[in-house]
Amino acid sequence: MYAMADRIYFDNAATTSLDGEVLEAMMPYLTNLYGNPSSIYSYGRECRLAIENARKSVAKILNAHPAEIFFTSGGTESSNTAINAAIKDLGCTHIISSAIEHHATLHTVEHLQHTGAAKLYFVQLLPNGHIDTSHLEQLLMEADGRCLVTLMHANNEIGNILDMVLVGELCKKFNAIFHSDTVQTVGHFPFDLRNTPVHFITGASHKFHGPKGVGILYINENVKIQPFVLGGSQERNMRAGTENVYGIVGFAKALQLATEHFTADSEYIRGLKTYLMQKLTVAFAGISFNGDPLGKSLYTLVSANFPKTEKSEMILFNLDINNICASGGSACSSGADVGSHVIRAISNNPGQVTVRFSFSKHNTRAEIDTVVEKLKNMI
Amino acid sequence: MYAMADRIYFDNAATTSLDGEVLEAMMPYLTNLYGNPSSIYSYGRECRLAIENARKSVAKILNAHPAEIFFTSGGTESSNTAINAAIKDLGCTHIISSAIEHHATLHTVEHLQHTGAAKLYFVQLLPNGHIDTSHLEQLLMEADGRCLVTLMHANNEIGNILDMVLVGELCKKFNAIFHSDTVQTVGHFPFDLRNTPVHFITGASHKFHGPKGVGILYINENVKIQPFVLGGSQERNMRAGTENVYGIVGFAKALQLATEHFTADSEYIRGLKTYLMQKLTVAFAGISFNGDPLGKSLYTLVSANFPKTEKSEMILFNLDINNICASGGSACSSGADVGSHVIRAISNNPGQVTVRFSFSKHNTRAEIDTVVEKLKNMI
Repeated sequence: MYAMADRIYFDNAATTSLDGEVLEAMMPYLTNLYGNPSSIYSYGRECRLAIENARKSVAKILNAHPAEIFFTSGGTESSNTAINAAIKDLGCTHIISSAIEHHATLHTVEHLQHTGAAKLYFVQLLPNGHIDTSHLEQLLMEADGRCLVTLMHANNEIGNILDMVLVGELCKKFNAIFHSDTVQTVGHFPFDLRNTPVHFITGASHKFHGPKGVGILYINENVKIQPFVLGGSQERNMRAGTENVYGIVGFAKALQLATEHFTADSEYIRGLKTYLMQKLTVAFAGISFNGDPLGKSLYTLVSANFPKTEKSEMILFNLDINNICASGGSACSSGADVGSHVIRAISNNPGQVTVRFSFSKHNTRAEIDTVVEKLKNMI
Repeated sequence: MYAMADRIYFDNAATTSLDGEVLEAMMPYLTNLYGNPSSIYSYGRECRLAIENARKSVAKILNAHPAEIFFTSGGTESSNTAINAAIKDLGCTHIISSAIEHHATLHTVEHLQHTGAAKLYFVQLLPNGHIDTSHLEQLLMEADGRCLVTLMHANNEIGNILDMVLVGELCKKFNAIFHSDTVQTVGHFPFDLRNTPVHFITGASHKFHGPKGVGILYINENVKIQPFVLGGSQERNMRAGTENVYGIVGFAKALQLATEHFTADSEYIRGLKTYLMQKLTVAFAGISFNGDPLGKSLYTLVSANFPKTEKSEMILFNLDINNICASGGSACSSGADVGSHVIRAISNNPGQVTVRFSFSKHNTRAEIDTVVEKLKNMI
């Protein structure tokens, strides 16, 4: 059912295949359990129960309280909600972010700056793409108003992982609100939110073999915000609109499966990552890797720089012709076609072509062998 | 597959069953066509093509341009987007709405009033629940700034249908922006948007046998607005977030099926409505119906007032016990449990109990016979 003849899919940071078991869990809500979960009769209550069980399951896995988990239409809406609320409801007048955030964060904070709702500062980056925490502390210290710090947990293009506890403790020290875009890590790493000093995190199930169109926003119980989408009283008045029941059920099931198989899957996928890096290093003189790939980094992705030549400039095009799915930057910004803002922010070297390869449990070393052979022919 | 043993579902204005043909159209995108539609490679482009074909199909059916159709997470998000944009981007400083709008509209306009972004006026209602158009004209005339008029096409609780062309022409005369919540009518009536003076309409496919969690916002090509959800460049920079591909495909398929079978289905469902009204009138002395049920009204619903007695106060409870799904007001506000703001706005009679029965093509006269018999036993 999930086989793609002759196609190698190395773009799992963009989206993943829907797991058959997840779809199976969703099917009752795509067929005979179609009631409106906000209805008063028992038939609707079955759907409401499914949503509340999904919430409990997600909360338990993330070690949060169910009242802290809200279902949304995806990670982007979740980040929009958190960032706007920090300014409108929590008294933040300053935003500290970074130049390599996802556009869901960047465009939102830039908009708030543009409208005069908040002042925006970017924390400096180290050459390996990690944030300069002493500069972050300096920015927090110098701010003459409450700060929102919004820094992603793992970068979707280069894979760098933030030390959330360290940043969260810094935020605590300065009474700042801390939002972290965790779209690349929820479903890929264990979370322990009761013991993590963060106010908002986000998730999107299509990044871990769940359905598209559904996400979560974690709101720490110590902060009280107003909804972003106004209307009905769904999600305890925090997110209006008829609930996407099958999506919510799918989110919870996908997170459950990801958590159950975390140890084995993450080991296996990390093996693919290091294997690709080794093979590329041997095959291509002058290749380099962005970020901190063998340090604090996603085990799921490799961001490789090929020396720019007439042939390497055509890599993505030729990978596509060879039925290999990989990307230049994030899918979310590919429509713009102006190159990656992340790569531009960490490197001023125009003499290279960047390709992101990102893996799931469905990939194999044999696929990597094939891709590296094809790359050799291309370049 | 869709049978609900012994259950009678008369709450189709809250949500409808997902059509088997719609689910079939969605299945490829729930299984092997999982690519990210914003990806650059051909595999992602297949998903993008599915979205663009869905957009073209929806646009053609509504007689709009594909560039005017944007997919969202549902009707509530669509209304939030339109109403906020009218204030933030289109220079509206006054909002004219009504007390019987859906909460997706009401809570949004009340929020804008509360924050001082706009002044809010409610148009007077006639005893039959229709708006007083001469009062609307008066409000438009007296406004000392640009107006947003937001009035729903069909009321979700009492079924009244607005004359969109008349209201649109009035808006035109006063250079006002016109948004209409059409969630109860898209998929239930033909639309001819090129010949309708309206700037924004909304739709949600779960109201016409499509999936939950997906909607549309029609934005007339003559107005240019900024997105509500910021981030990636999806939906031509108008709605950020990875596209809910299977939802979008499902929306278009459901609208296509609804349109193909409109004549037969609407006749059939209208027959159910009048049949229920006749049966109730014969069975219950003192029963009355809200709105304009035999005039400008949805063919899908009946809002009936039963004289209040100790027994009739328990109607909804007893209907549920008898496996009959019907509602007091809209599902979206049932969480609040303060009664219906719509019924309160049109009637100051505390001596009645209101029940909304709403139908789909899957209901039968035999079900109505059963429900009326059960009601007789209850009251």
